[in-house]
Amino acid sequence: MTSTNGPPDTPLTPDFYHYDWNALVSVRLFDATVSVGWADGTTLDCYSLWLAENAHGLGVEPKSREGMIDPADLPAPSDLVDATVGPDGELVLQWDGGPVARVHPGWLRHVADGAHRPHSYLPARQTWTASDLPEPPTIDGSRVLDDPDVLTEWLTLLVRFGLARLSDTPADVDYLGELAARIGPIRDSNFGPVWSVRAKIDPDSTAYTGLNLGQHTDLPTRETPPGFQFLHCVENSCEGGWSRMTDGLAVAAELAANHPDAYEALTTLRWVFFNRSVDDDHRWSGPIIDRGGPGQPLTLRAFYPVRAFPDMAPADVPRAYASLRRFSEVAHDPRFQVRYPFRVGDLVGFDNRVVLHGRDSFDPVSGARHLRGCYIDHDDVFSRLRVLRRRATATTT
Amino acid sequence: MTSTNGPPDTPLTPDFYHYDWNALVSVRLFDATVSVGWADGTTLDCYSLWLAENAHGLGVEPKSREGMIDPADLPAPSDLVDATVGPDGELVLQWDGGPVARVHPGWLRHVADGAHRPHSYLPARQTWTASDLPEPPTIDGSRVLDDPDVLTEWLTLLVRFGLARLSDTPADVDYLGELAARIGPIRDSNFGPVWSVRAKIDPDSTAYTGLNLGQHTDLPTRETPPGFQFLHCVENSCEGGWSRMTDGLAVAAELAANHPDAYEALTTLRWVFFNRSVDDDHRWSGPIIDRGGPGQPLTLRAFYPVRAFPDMAPADVPRAYASLRRFSEVAHDPRFQVRYPFRVGDLVGFDNRVVLHGRDSFDPVSGARHLRGCYIDHDDVFSRLRVLRRRATATTT
Repeated sequence: MTSTNGPPDTPLTPDFYHYDWNALVSVRLFDATVSVGWADGTTLDCYSLWLAENAHGLGVEPKSREGMIDPADLPAPSDLVDATVGPDGELVLQWDGGPVARVHPGWLRHVADGAHRPHSYLPARQTWTASDLPEPPTIDGSRVLDDPDVLTEWLTLLVRFGLARLSDTPADVDYLGELAARIGPIRDSNFGPVWSVRAKIDPDSTAYTGLNLGQHTDLPTRETPPGFQFLHCVENSCEGGWSRMTDGLAVAAELAANHPDAYEALTTLRWVFFNRSVDDDHRWSGPIIDRGGPGQPLTLRAFYPVRAFPDMAPADVPRAYASLRRFSEVAHDPRFQVRYPFRVGDLVGFDNRVVLHGRDSFDPVSGARHLRGCYIDHDDVFSRLRVLRRRATATTT
Repeated sequence: MTSTNGPPDTPLTPDFYHYDWNALVSVRLFDATVSVGWADGTTLDCYSLWLAENAHGLGVEPKSREGMIDPADLPAPSDLVDATVGPDGELVLQWDGGPVARVHPGWLRHVADGAHRPHSYLPARQTWTASDLPEPPTIDGSRVLDDPDVLTEWLTLLVRFGLARLSDTPADVDYLGELAARIGPIRDSNFGPVWSVRAKIDPDSTAYTGLNLGQHTDLPTRETPPGFQFLHCVENSCEGGWSRMTDGLAVAAELAANHPDAYEALTTLRWVFFNRSVDDDHRWSGPIIDRGGPGQPLTLRAFYPVRAFPDMAPADVPRAYASLRRFSEVAHDPRFQVRYPFRVGDLVGFDNRVVLHGRDSFDPVSGARHLRGCYIDHDDVFSRLRVLRRRATATTT
């Protein structure tokens, strides 16, 4: 299939997406950089070697459309000797002694527009408090396995709020795995790819008791904790056990604004998180509010059951504990916390690195309560959602 | 099982490991901190709330041995009213109106010795060049599935050098999955949990051609690329296709010392890595040499086939490309690069985030070449190796 609105011999792009044809009106080559321009005044500076890497007949492996030139084997930057606008508004390039290459101007335009960047095709994250979200954003999940539009709508809510619920899904223990297969690879752990949450006689985690669980994030014992968590209620006749969610972005903002000493301690003082189960010895040292490195997202490491050792100067330990107490108070403040029952057939997804989840205590002998859970990392949810949201426009081969 | 050398009523620890009994000789409580001392002069300052979280009968959930007190519900720091040395050298604590708790002095000692920190029970990483390692560190793999000592030895080499080989394993396509099950959960991706590397008619990656592959790391399109990669040769009658490995720690050190401009560009200028396959849209923006945030390990993002867009000011792009060329030259310098054939039955593990791997071209019609591959993240390899290396001492229940 070729572009619906390009010329008959539309140049191939270095990926498999469709780009609207968007003819260039100007091209100028100066000092190994090609400046291209469109009629609306938009311009893009393209370095010669970047064009070489992305040109079919030169840098692109034709079947995978990946780059195939090791950087050491790239031409000299000055080997690009001519650049012109072609008859249909495409970019035409001539390398010294090499091939002529034609570049799709709509593909160039998506770079000029910034649509090549990682946040593209994803909704912006909206911070929320209890007054913004009296309950999790919810859609009818009865058709989500079969209707990509329903999946798109739900994942869009999930990425926008870090929290989204499907109602009316089948109460089938295998259902969550089927849904995950529509999204992407499961993030496996020592709990297995899909796990059950219910009270156990010999719990290897406090999750497997009927205890109250304070607002927390799972697996802070890992360098990168699991991105999204999904919990599917397949059975619930117990009293109690309501779910609670708090947006960690709102908690962090509240702490930064009104409790700056606590915020400073929470973002800088490190703890060793340590998984205590018999056959695992996971450990990671980091702060409770981990702002990461440049360009990295926020990660909260807030799970007291595995927060094991202060990794800081002894003099800092008292204020570290004071900051934990403050964090917990804000995380449990009804102003920030959404609280709701888990109904059979409900399936809740949330950003495990930023949205804190908790549970009221329940009485394991009052009935049966069975949740199925799994993790899927940010990378894989974001990839699926980009693909779904781009699908409105046809792919080109 | 109780400690082999503690008193008959050895206090339980907040984990399931054995700790040698190591009697305290001094205890002093001052300002909510207990300073404990041993006969050799070692001391440890223990904040009262940290002791509360780790004391059986107070903060420890007895079956999972995880903490069970939300920080908001912890006692006041001053509620610890007395601390003494017990009759067997244990720490005895009295909370105001609360229980008496006894704390294992050997467990306290492992904290004083720093053995609670994440690097514990792991070998230190050794940087290497081709003269240090003429070939990958190799052990006989024929018994690795059945003998934990062989697995321990191999994983120790893998963590120490970021590269270790098993020879003489069965040439069975299912073998790698069996071995992975001895280590930990596989890191799944759009390539599947265990994948085959061989030339394909319609490759969705340059790996699936017979092309030369320059020194690289896999999946820089992910926020945290897979930690360790494992490649198992189950068939190889092709000419060519030798493997090449380069320690990225040595490359980074060489660049920092002798090419500081390139090093500066490689560690600061960002690229968008973009997975081009039809049904995935993975993206991440980061530098080639990603030093991460505080406390995070080095990650190299060095895979030109998916390095798609400069994410930097246009004026920086020329020096960014110059730095890529320099990086590649150093990564392919024979001084740094180990090169060796892939024999049937060889199974090579390497740190995918730091050790660059590459492959000479091979002729897909000269024979058959079939590798099986999978990823296991650092977290899971480190956890398994800590457990194996601690196993020399018995666990206590």
